[in-house]
Amino acid sequence: MTHASQNAIPHQSVAILIIGNEVLSGRTREANAWFAAKSLFDVGCKLSEVAIVPDIQDKIVSTLRRLHQQYDAVITSGGIGPTHDDITMQSVADAFDVSLLEHADTLQMMTDYYGADALTKGRRRMARLPDGAKPIICEKSICPGAFINNVYVFAGVPHIFASQLTSVLGDFQGIAFHRIEIEANHPESSFAQELSEIQAQHTAIEIGSYPGRCGNQPTGKICVSGTDEVQIAQVKKIIEQMLKDKQKT
Amino acid sequence: MTHASQNAIPHQSVAILIIGNEVLSGRTREANAWFAAKSLFDVGCKLSEVAIVPDIQDKIVSTLRRLHQQYDAVITSGGIGPTHDDITMQSVADAFDVSLLEHADTLQMMTDYYGADALTKGRRRMARLPDGAKPIICEKSICPGAFINNVYVFAGVPHIFASQLTSVLGDFQGIAFHRIEIEANHPESSFAQELSEIQAQHTAIEIGSYPGRCGNQPTGKICVSGTDEVQIAQVKKIIEQMLKDKQKT
Repeated sequence: MTHASQNAIPHQSVAILIIGNEVLSGRTREANAWFAAKSLFDVGCKLSEVAIVPDIQDKIVSTLRRLHQQYDAVITSGGIGPTHDDITMQSVADAFDVSLLEHADTLQMMTDYYGADALTKGRRRMARLPDGAKPIICEKSICPGAFINNVYVFAGVPHIFASQLTSVLGDFQGIAFHRIEIEANHPESSFAQELSEIQAQHTAIEIGSYPGRCGNQPTGKICVSGTDEVQIAQVKKIIEQMLKDKQKT
Repeated sequence: MTHASQNAIPHQSVAILIIGNEVLSGRTREANAWFAAKSLFDVGCKLSEVAIVPDIQDKIVSTLRRLHQQYDAVITSGGIGPTHDDITMQSVADAFDVSLLEHADTLQMMTDYYGADALTKGRRRMARLPDGAKPIICEKSICPGAFINNVYVFAGVPHIFASQLTSVLGDFQGIAFHRIEIEANHPESSFAQELSEIQAQHTAIEIGSYPGRCGNQPTGKICVSGTDEVQIAQVKKIIEQMLKDKQKT
């Protein structure tokens, strides 16, 4: 009953859908999209978009349908617990026009784990999966996530989310990205023009520039990333030389 | 030149659009949506959706148009710096089919601040605003944000974002929300059914339930929020009684 990937080609583009009023009201700082962003970057898969929506069924359904159509895969986080405000499994079922059904194997597994007497209505709720979905089992929870079409349905609790994502990370394996950072002792505005020209000459890699500060002095951080390590190293040298030349002028 | 709100009625629904490859690649943990979520909750304005998109012009334009149509107001964060990867102002102009123009007062202010000699091409880039936009000035940066239609364009650097949002927070003033939390010494699944019934009887307030843990014991946190403090207090009592009764059984 462990997750067996059916994806011959790894997912090239992925969106994450975070579901939860607690994030939008500022009660909880979002952590799962951040964990997923790092995990996906490490295996060479592009995180293309993150959406955070409230516990409103229509909103979950419409957002899920949009992301499902736009991207190779969608990962959802949150709303699969035992209480009334956990409506993600029902929303996923609705998004794909299927029923939400008790999953026999999952129910059996949960009955074995809790004992029949302790299988409350709330717990039993967590044995329901959209019709046709496969359960995703992880080490950290007896209650499964789900996989249906190109959608992975995971928990909102960070250590369970992390365990569930890790259990299917093979589906997302691409060509590893690399990233290096260069500290610039100048404000971004002083090298913006030169950096723009270097980017235009090296379109296979991505150059990002971010403001920094050293004491009272504005500085910059330049981030070079991509799949081609050789070109990243070349561009690093070119940028470092450009910054050296700046210092002289 | 400070921001003067033209909004007779405060914004009732708000979306945030975070722009930046650095967030989607896991380099940077998103902080501004979280800050905004807390700030908006405190003034009684509902944060309805957050979208995080990469530094890709088409994607920024299409997402901004969607959010602009769906919500009373949109706040963007990121991509207004001096370098080639800062394309937010151009994208906002494109989204509303207007030109991106040097803003005379802003340019004058920046020239006075930096001196004409130090007004590099990169810095001068930051004096451009979508045609018809008003600059949003804050304490933390000489380079302005912008306000056009129902869109607030802010910086990605957290202390500047916070200062810019704070300077216009009056536009978002609603009826203050209140939130209380109740610790439950039981797992969520044990009171899920009762909580669902309490929520059904009190539709004007919102009850959220979140899993917790005390040592090896799963516990729960129940969060009651809304604008009616009296009803929140009543519901708190009802929930506490329900949890007490659970303890006896």
